[in-house]
Amino acid sequence: MYIVKTVKEAKEITRKWAAEGLSIGLVPTMGYLHEGHLSLIKESAKDNDKTCVSIFVNPIQFGKNEDFGSYPRDIEYDTALCEKSGADLVFCPAAEEMYPDGFCSHIEISGPAEGLCGARRPGHFNGVCTVVMKLFNIINPSRAYFGRKDAQQLAVICQMVKDYNMDVKIIGMPIVREADGLAKSSRNTYLSSEERKAALCLSRALRTVKSLFDSGERNPDILKQTAKKIIKDELLSRIDYIEIVDIITMKPINEIKSDALCALAVYIGRTRLIDNIALEVKS
Amino acid sequence: MYIVKTVKEAKEITRKWAAEGLSIGLVPTMGYLHEGHLSLIKESAKDNDKTCVSIFVNPIQFGKNEDFGSYPRDIEYDTALCEKSGADLVFCPAAEEMYPDGFCSHIEISGPAEGLCGARRPGHFNGVCTVVMKLFNIINPSRAYFGRKDAQQLAVICQMVKDYNMDVKIIGMPIVREADGLAKSSRNTYLSSEERKAALCLSRALRTVKSLFDSGERNPDILKQTAKKIIKDELLSRIDYIEIVDIITMKPINEIKSDALCALAVYIGRTRLIDNIALEVKS
Repeated sequence: MYIVKTVKEAKEITRKWAAEGLSIGLVPTMGYLHEGHLSLIKESAKDNDKTCVSIFVNPIQFGKNEDFGSYPRDIEYDTALCEKSGADLVFCPAAEEMYPDGFCSHIEISGPAEGLCGARRPGHFNGVCTVVMKLFNIINPSRAYFGRKDAQQLAVICQMVKDYNMDVKIIGMPIVREADGLAKSSRNTYLSSEERKAALCLSRALRTVKSLFDSGERNPDILKQTAKKIIKDELLSRIDYIEIVDIITMKPINEIKSDALCALAVYIGRTRLIDNIALEVKS
Repeated sequence: MYIVKTVKEAKEITRKWAAEGLSIGLVPTMGYLHEGHLSLIKESAKDNDKTCVSIFVNPIQFGKNEDFGSYPRDIEYDTALCEKSGADLVFCPAAEEMYPDGFCSHIEISGPAEGLCGARRPGHFNGVCTVVMKLFNIINPSRAYFGRKDAQQLAVICQMVKDYNMDVKIIGMPIVREADGLAKSSRNTYLSSEERKAALCLSRALRTVKSLFDSGERNPDILKQTAKKIIKDELLSRIDYIEIVDIITMKPINEIKSDALCALAVYIGRTRLIDNIALEVKS
């Protein structure tokens, strides 16, 4: 497995693969890999001749008061996991490699980026799109893999790919959860053991919403109120948002007629966690 | 020569060429082609196996009070010229093909886009970058050709290609002028015969600046004053800007130590014309 830090090396290797007619999968990550990431890498290794994992804590997708500095990093452990999961190349550039002096542009995106996390984290999805556009151009993948825990990110990337007529196929993969239901996240490492237990209210709320939905409830307000109550009952929690949105546009809906998503962001202590569950209308 | 109006067709043809190992040149235009454009097409036909010309009056690069509606169009004459000049494909999409319902992003660029036309036409270069990024992704050219009359546009596109790690090679081609010195422009068609004569003050001013520079003058203020005087002497003219800038960054400079550009925008009657001349420092 190659481990490269420069755009030049990453391009040289991937262009050589492309010239040999090999298909390339890309898994963009911020590192501190967990089984969610590994499921993406494994899927990519299954679908493609070659799999690239990017590991880059992207400064421009963090707000001023967010956790860019404290975001967990462990590049050596990460690269070992990548290799074990079937990656052929790890691209782990420094910030100056991605944003050299003179860098002066970004992708500005609205649409699916507007509500939910987009509303609470101004500029976040602009930063995500900018780095992902760069990664797509550097690696030139046939397919790129994203986890559905970041459902809005997935919707935003799909929109960007459409807006810019990009050839890459975007593949969304199921949320991977701990045995007790907590969605895997690099940020779970921030939680104290007490907070770790409290954090279960997110998945508990979503499961309850889903079973209400499955039993026929189609009113988003009732579903949201149900989730809200469960989360508020947890003392360490503070709700950032709970929304029922269309799964493509990420816009709140008044009645669930097509596939929707119940998405939420909740602070557990000082740690902000997100989670969601699909509410699929059988046709 | 293919003439196609959809992204799908343009991709199918160019991807087939790429799969055959053929190099592709792209000449992005807004149509109403003149010899400046044709020099780009011919150069591309010389350098590449296949040459694509896009003809698209890009709505998002025009300001509200600018000439989007009246911009001259003659697609049939244009396609004939393309074929004669060696093009293999003309891509002439409708606005809805490039910006379908739901399109919700753009490239936001500063740096070389900030001064000159960027300062007078807010959002102009964002619109240029957005459409050019799309065209690059649709055609996937090895090389793309731009005229140096739009020197700031060329600098902005080079910056975008760098910022987004794109593989395309950008080639800037010399300004093509009428016999009397007027830079070829689709907008020259707006000029009355009296204005047409008055418009010669732009190239006259630039030639005078160049010969002063060649005789050793390195003070931008003196060079600008010289140009200003020549243009002000023309009754039908109104100066939008005259600047001496670095040829890469497009930033005004205090002393000409490396390659610079004298760039100007001047209204002749109601028509806004731009022109420029390189001031090259021999090393």
